[in-house]
Amino acid sequence: MRISHLIIKKKLNKELTTEEINWIIDNYINGKIRDYHMSALLMAVCFNGLSDRETVDLTLAMRDSGDIIDLSSIEGTIVDKHSSGGVGDKVSLVLIGIIGAIGVPFAKMSGRGLGHTGGTIDKLESIPGFKTNLTVDEFIDNIKSINVAIAGQTSDLAPADKKLYALRDVTGTVDNISLIASSIMSKKLACGCDAVVLDVTTGSGAFMNRTEDAIELSKKMVNIGNSLGKKTIAVVTNMDEPLGNAVGNALEVAEAVQALKGYGPDDLMEVVYTIAEYMLIAAKKTKDIDEAKELIKSVIDNGSAYNKFIEFVEKQGGDSSYVRNYDSLINASIIREVKSEKSGYVQKINALKIGNASLILGGGREEIEDEIDYSVGIVINKKVADSVKTGQVIAYIYGNDESKVEAAYKEIISAYEIDGKKINKPEMIIDIIE
Amino acid sequence: MRISHLIIKKKLNKELTTEEINWIIDNYINGKIRDYHMSALLMAVCFNGLSDRETVDLTLAMRDSGDIIDLSSIEGTIVDKHSSGGVGDKVSLVLIGIIGAIGVPFAKMSGRGLGHTGGTIDKLESIPGFKTNLTVDEFIDNIKSINVAIAGQTSDLAPADKKLYALRDVTGTVDNISLIASSIMSKKLACGCDAVVLDVTTGSGAFMNRTEDAIELSKKMVNIGNSLGKKTIAVVTNMDEPLGNAVGNALEVAEAVQALKGYGPDDLMEVVYTIAEYMLIAAKKTKDIDEAKELIKSVIDNGSAYNKFIEFVEKQGGDSSYVRNYDSLINASIIREVKSEKSGYVQKINALKIGNASLILGGGREEIEDEIDYSVGIVINKKVADSVKTGQVIAYIYGNDESKVEAAYKEIISAYEIDGKKINKPEMIIDIIE
Repeated sequence: MRISHLIIKKKLNKELTTEEINWIIDNYINGKIRDYHMSALLMAVCFNGLSDRETVDLTLAMRDSGDIIDLSSIEGTIVDKHSSGGVGDKVSLVLIGIIGAIGVPFAKMSGRGLGHTGGTIDKLESIPGFKTNLTVDEFIDNIKSINVAIAGQTSDLAPADKKLYALRDVTGTVDNISLIASSIMSKKLACGCDAVVLDVTTGSGAFMNRTEDAIELSKKMVNIGNSLGKKTIAVVTNMDEPLGNAVGNALEVAEAVQALKGYGPDDLMEVVYTIAEYMLIAAKKTKDIDEAKELIKSVIDNGSAYNKFIEFVEKQGGDSSYVRNYDSLINASIIREVKSEKSGYVQKINALKIGNASLILGGGREEIEDEIDYSVGIVINKKVADSVKTGQVIAYIYGNDESKVEAAYKEIISAYEIDGKKINKPEMIIDIIE
Repeated sequence: MRISHLIIKKKLNKELTTEEINWIIDNYINGKIRDYHMSALLMAVCFNGLSDRETVDLTLAMRDSGDIIDLSSIEGTIVDKHSSGGVGDKVSLVLIGIIGAIGVPFAKMSGRGLGHTGGTIDKLESIPGFKTNLTVDEFIDNIKSINVAIAGQTSDLAPADKKLYALRDVTGTVDNISLIASSIMSKKLACGCDAVVLDVTTGSGAFMNRTEDAIELSKKMVNIGNSLGKKTIAVVTNMDEPLGNAVGNALEVAEAVQALKGYGPDDLMEVVYTIAEYMLIAAKKTKDIDEAKELIKSVIDNGSAYNKFIEFVEKQGGDSSYVRNYDSLINASIIREVKSEKSGYVQKINALKIGNASLILGGGREEIEDEIDYSVGIVINKKVADSVKTGQVIAYIYGNDESKVEAAYKEIISAYEIDGKKINKPEMIIDIIE
C-alpha cells in the first residue's frame, strides 16, 4: 500500500477498505505516514466524506490505537453521557446526582473546556480540593462504591484521535461530520461503558450551528455505537441561548446544586430530565419514559440526588461545605448589572457571545495551557421570550478586573436582540435519535 | 494572517488575495507554514481550483522565491521552448539546430526525465563529453556566440515550486491544472526569456491524457505568460503514439540528427515545423507561418541546421564524431525484432507502454537517483495506420539484458492494437493557443 495512492483514491471519491483504514491509522501512529500526507487525506475527506462503513472502521482503528478501559468488574449496565458542548451546560453535574441516586452506574470521562464552551472537569475543579486525575482503579472503585465517578481523559485513550484532532485543528479540516463522529465515538468506545447518551447541541452556542448538521452528526454517532454493540441514543438539544441562567465555573456549580434541590431553571431541567430519562432507558433501568420521569422526580424531591452529589464531591476529594453553602463559591470582587437599552421581548441571546463574555472575564481557555478564574461569569436575568423594560437588569457580570468587566458588558449587550414582538419560549428538545 | 483561516477560505471556494498568496509562499519557504498546512491547502485547491488571477499570483510568488536569470545582455528576442513531455519526444534537439541556424537566440533550461517520459538533458548526455551543468555566465556566453545553449535547471530557480512539487508528488495533489500551469510557468519566467512556445502534449504518452485538459492547461499557461508580458504560445500536439520512431536516449539523438539532415519521420517533422514556426513568430523573426516554414526548410536543406547542432554539441563539450557518425552512439549488445502476431492495420500504439518498455530496458528513471543506460530503447517500425502482416517486424528492441528485453517485448506487444479496419494517420497538431 502507498499512502499517496490512498489519498488519490479518496480524492476520486472511492471508498477505502477496512484494511486500508487500519493501515493508515497504524502507520500514522508509528510515524511512517506523515502529517502532510494525513492533512491532504483529511481535506479530501472534507470534500468527499466517509461512508458509514468507513466511519465505523475509522472509529474502531482510533479506539484500538490505545488503551481500552475494562469496566467489566462493575455490575449492571454502565452508562456514559457526552455533550457536544455549549454555553451554561451544567447538565452532567445535575445528572451525577440523579443517575447516581437512582443506582445506575455512571462512568464519565471528560475533557477540559476550550474556547467559548466550558468543560465539566473545569466546573468541578471550582470546588476546593476536587480532583479529577483518578487512576483507572480509583475510577472503577468509586463507581462500585457510590455509582458515579468522573475523570479527566488520559492520553492513553485513543491516541490516534488525539494526534488527528491536533492536526485537523490547524489544517482547516475540523468540520466533517464523519471525522467529528469518529473522534467522539472512538473515545467513548475506549471508555468501556455499555451504553451512552449523547447530548448533541445545536444553535449559536453549539459547535453545530445548524440543526440539520446536528441531526446528521447524531445519526452517524448512533450508527457507530449501535453497530459496535454499544447502546447509543442521541438527544438533539437547543443551544441557541445559554442553557439555564449561570455561565461560568463556580456559578454553574451553584446552579446545578439548586437544580438538584428542585429549583433549576425550566430550560435546564427539561434537558436534564430528557437526558436522564434516556440514560435510564439505555441502562434498562426503566421500561419507558414515564416511569423514568417519575423516578427522576422522586430522587430530586426526596433529596437523594442532592445527597448523592455531596457524596460524589467528597469521594473525589472536594470540600462539600462549598456545595452545601454554594454562596461561598461565588466570590468575584465585582458584580455588575447589565441593563437593557430597549423595551420589548428578548428575541435572541447569542450564546456564543455570552460564552465569549465569560472567556473575556477569564472563565475559560483560549489556549490549552491558559489558567481559569473559577469565580467569574455571567448570570442571565432575562431569557428569550421574557419581557423587559429599558433600564431593567438583563444579566449580572461576575468579574475580578474592571476592564474585562467593561469588555464583557459590551459583548453581553450585543448578544441580546430585543424588539416588540411577543414570542414563545424555544423548544429545548429538537430530536431523539436511537 | 493565519494559515488555517486561509486553508478554510479556499475550502469554502473563496478567492485568495494577492497579499495572501505572497504571504503563503514566503512563509512556506521560510518554514513557518509547514508541509501539513500546505498539503491541506493544495488538496482544497484540487477540489475548488484557482482563478486566473490566483494562478498568475501564485506563479509570480514562486518565480520570485529564487533567482531570476538576467538575459538582457543578449541581443534580439530570446525564445524558450517547453514540452509537457512524451515518449520519443526529441523535438527540442531538432529545434536547437533549426532555430540556432536561423539566428534567433534560443535559451533552454531543461529538467531531467522521470517515469515514462525522457528528458532532453538525458538525451544530450548520451553524447560522450556533453555537459549541461553550465554556469549562468557560460549559458549567456554560449547564446551570444552561437545562438543556442541548453542547461540543467539550477535549484536556485523557483525553489518554492521545487518544494511544492515534491510535496504534491507524495500527497496526491499533482493533477490540478492551475498548479501545473503555475509550476511550469514560474520556472519559464525565472529563466528570463522574452517569449516561450509551449508544446502541450495529449494522449496515452502524455501527462494529460485528455485533449480538453491539455487545452485548458494551455490556456492557463498562455494567460499567465501573456499577462506578465512574456509572449506565450501553446501548441497542443498528439502524443497518443510515440513521436517519430526512436524511443531511448542515444536512439533519439540519432533520429534527431537524421531529422536535421532532412530524413525525419513525418509525424516528428510536423511537430518540429509547427513549434519552430511559432518560435519564429514569437521572436518576431518572420511575419507569418508561410515565411517561417520557408526559412526552416532552407536551413535544413542547406545543411546549416545540422551544422549548428554539431557546433552546439562541441560548444557544450560533446564529442561531435558521435553525431557525425551516429551509428557509433547505438551500441546496445542485444537487438531483438518484435514481430506482429496479427495481420491488419495498426489502430493504436499505447505510448505509455512503449515508454515503460524503455524504462524496463534501463533507458529512464523510476526514481530521481536512478542511473540511465543511454544505449537502450525501442525503434518503432510500424506506426499507427500502417498495414502489417503476421510475422512482420513492428519494432526493434535495443537492450543489454536478456530478461529485460523479454519483459520489454511483452510490453511492446501489448502496446499494439491491430485489426482489419483501415484508418488514417492521426492529426499531429490539435490546437494552437496564443
